[in-house]
Amino acid sequence: MFLRKVINNAKRLAPNIRTMASQGPLVDLTVDNDGVSIMTMQRPPVNSLNLDLLRELSKSLDEVAKNKSRGLILTSSSPTVFSAGLDIMEMYKPDFKRAEEFWTTLQDVWFKLFGSNFVTAAAINGHAPAGGCLLAMSCEYRVMVQGKFTIGLNETALGIVAPTWFMDTMCHTIPVREAEYALTTARMFTVDEALKVRLVDESASDKADAINKCKSFIKKFERIPPLARSITKQKIRQAPLKNLQENRKADCEEFLAYLKNPKVQQSLDMYIQSLKKKA
Amino acid sequence: MFLRKVINNAKRLAPNIRTMASQGPLVDLTVDNDGVSIMTMQRPPVNSLNLDLLRELSKSLDEVAKNKSRGLILTSSSPTVFSAGLDIMEMYKPDFKRAEEFWTTLQDVWFKLFGSNFVTAAAINGHAPAGGCLLAMSCEYRVMVQGKFTIGLNETALGIVAPTWFMDTMCHTIPVREAEYALTTARMFTVDEALKVRLVDESASDKADAINKCKSFIKKFERIPPLARSITKQKIRQAPLKNLQENRKADCEEFLAYLKNPKVQQSLDMYIQSLKKKA
Amino acid sequence: MFLRKVINNAKRLAPNIRTMASQGPLVDLTVDNDGVSIMTMQRPPVNSLNLDLLRELSKSLDEVAKNKSRGLILTSSSPTVFSAGLDIMEMYKPDFKRAEEFWTTLQDVWFKLFGSNFVTAAAINGHAPAGGCLLAMSCEYRVMVQGKFTIGLNETALGIVAPTWFMDTMCHTIPVREAEYALTTARMFTVDEALKVRLVDESASDKADAINKCKSFIKKFERIPPLARSITKQKIRQAPLKNLQENRKADCEEFLAYLKNPKVQQSLDMYIQSLKKKA
Repeated sequence: MFLRKVINNAKRLAPNIRTMASQGPLVDLTVDNDGVSIMTMQRPPVNSLNLDLLRELSKSLDEVAKNKSRGLILTSSSPTVFSAGLDIMEMYKPDFKRAEEFWTTLQDVWFKLFGSNFVTAAAINGHAPAGGCLLAMSCEYRVMVQGKFTIGLNETALGIVAPTWFMDTMCHTIPVREAEYALTTARMFTVDEALKVRLVDESASDKADAINKCKSFIKKFERIPPLARSITKQKIRQAPLKNLQENRKADCEEFLAYLKNPKVQQSLDMYIQSLKKKA
Repeated sequence: MFLRKVINNAKRLAPNIRTMASQGPLVDLTVDNDGVSIMTMQRPPVNSLNLDLLRELSKSLDEVAKNKSRGLILTSSSPTVFSAGLDIMEMYKPDFKRAEEFWTTLQDVWFKLFGSNFVTAAAINGHAPAGGCLLAMSCEYRVMVQGKFTIGLNETALGIVAPTWFMDTMCHTIPVREAEYALTTARMFTVDEALKVRLVDESASDKADAINKCKSFIKKFERIPPLARSITKQKIRQAPLKNLQENRKADCEEFLAYLKNPKVQQSLDMYIQSLKKKA
Repeated sequence: MFLRKVINNAKRLAPNIRTMASQGPLVDLTVDNDGVSIMTMQRPPVNSLNLDLLRELSKSLDEVAKNKSRGLILTSSSPTVFSAGLDIMEMYKPDFKRAEEFWTTLQDVWFKLFGSNFVTAAAINGHAPAGGCLLAMSCEYRVMVQGKFTIGLNETALGIVAPTWFMDTMCHTIPVREAEYALTTARMFTVDEALKVRLVDESASDKADAINKCKSFIKKFERIPPLARSITKQKIRQAPLKNLQENRKADCEEFLAYLKNPKVQQSLDMYIQSLKKKA
């Protein structure tokens, strides 16, 4: 029953999620003429967050912390997907040593993004389910391209429970009542729905427009002394940051225990088989 | 001064609240053709929550946890009142052993409803003041019948302070700024006002319509693996649940100390006399 | 770079902020014919909160706690400024003994206002930046006069980080997502913008209208037993109150350490020179 549900959701929600061997850098980081860091995820086909992509994101975030740019815009090279979220191949029959590094690197990326001292904005130019939504919500501002794209923490649809810090990040963005409804129903918001609850701040006609609007947000801080700004941001984000800081290890162990559950492995297996048949 | 206020509020707010001996079961629990549990409070005239009704609610919630229905809809057999809240006869010149059981049973009902692993919705087909509002807010979804019905935590109007967990439940539903205003002013929301702050999620033309809309909500979970759904719900409700779990005893003692206050007993006495004169 | 920003902000934001020797009482407290306490800040030109004004506010709040009036309305004698916030002359080359008293008195005023057992409302008849906004937010209801007036916690614009309890007070009033955006961007809300996020509850045509609307709010409690009302208010405000109560000393030391920072003194110096040149 549980497995059939997961497979049906898999077919419905993720028709194109396959993993590919990586070629070249998975993250492109450039500082453009306006002095803004543009960080582009480019792991075909859908920016699934595997250990390699997370490592590069983590390293790139360190670079932004040092490059004295005016702020960061996170975006995707794909025309249809911002990021499809965590790569399930990291969870399927895992090497547990690698799985542990996978999870701690995901935690690192969140700390560096959600708790960064530089200004952050997401130019969401495609679908942003699960971990993709988490990355977007960890920024301080979200602009999403109009179209058929959707965004949300839809973990439950695949039988997964979003970790507490995913929930904390969502409750920092939208009201708790909206968050509960969205999390339990695996709600994927259209751009208009996301605007209404302020899961995103602005819509855009295309990627270039989204990046320009992110830049306008970053420009707001031109006259704000950067130290006061960054401490203020980190202070108001303190509770979620502290929550994970104090529970990093337990959070990782919970993830590993989840992977060791035979039922979970069985459902991942059926899920992957169904994707293979489709392809 | 305090007492006069309470009496005036009593006359104004609760013209029909009398208690009656119970006849037959106070809760009707049936699983209907759609596989949904319908739990109907039926303690005439206004579903005042006395120990007997709370015990039956608690037992019925245990049954739903086991009956493998698709979810629970909580409603009332009365055409005008969902539930009038706590029965003040349990507080007036109480037997303290019974009063203690009364309060711990109320806590139990809340734990089982607010923290349930099954889907919950309230078809609010009448007034829902105080404890009636608490029951509705403890569900995951609220549909309220249009008409002259109102809903809210109006404890202060009768000189009562809502316990912390009543407040936590309200702050889980509406913004804290709205909750403070509502709690201090004893605000009873019309259906339209409740919709605006999302104290209720939908309005309905009558009870049947309300139940249908609750079913549509429950149907949303058809494709969601139930374990992931229920853990997600319990995780996002963790803070209020833990708050009371850690303070059950102190919370109960606070209630008993309140009942021992002669001023409180005096005001309940005047309140009850005024109702008798009216009847 | 940092200093230039601060100076530019100073010129832009606070063209008229000068300090003057005080003449007579800085707070006027009267109980009017409706039995309502009207507390008027009257420290020309802009009700900058120096130690003297804070002391008088603290003393006046004690009086209201005892005078059995029906509630408090906080307002300003200035036609254009509610309060310009903390007086920077208390921070510039400070006597540290006085600076410590300055900060603890500010904490006292907040405890007495935010945690008061009497009803509080702010008739905001002018600009309310920074500490002025804090005073308004600490009340239970806010009515603001339409015009070119603005309100907000704009500390970052001057290179200052709002203390945690300023942030807590804002998050008790508006959603955390709005608060983060406002705090980091030093956002000053117009009356319409403030109404939209409910940073203020109503607008008014002039000061008299604002005071009348505050009185209508206070009148709502005529029938509510005052003890239940005040305990309810203090309970729902418990988390922010407890937060500062447990950190009063550390919070004060953080402020004093800030004043001892040579960079801060240098920027205050340049700020004050620029104001002098202007005058």
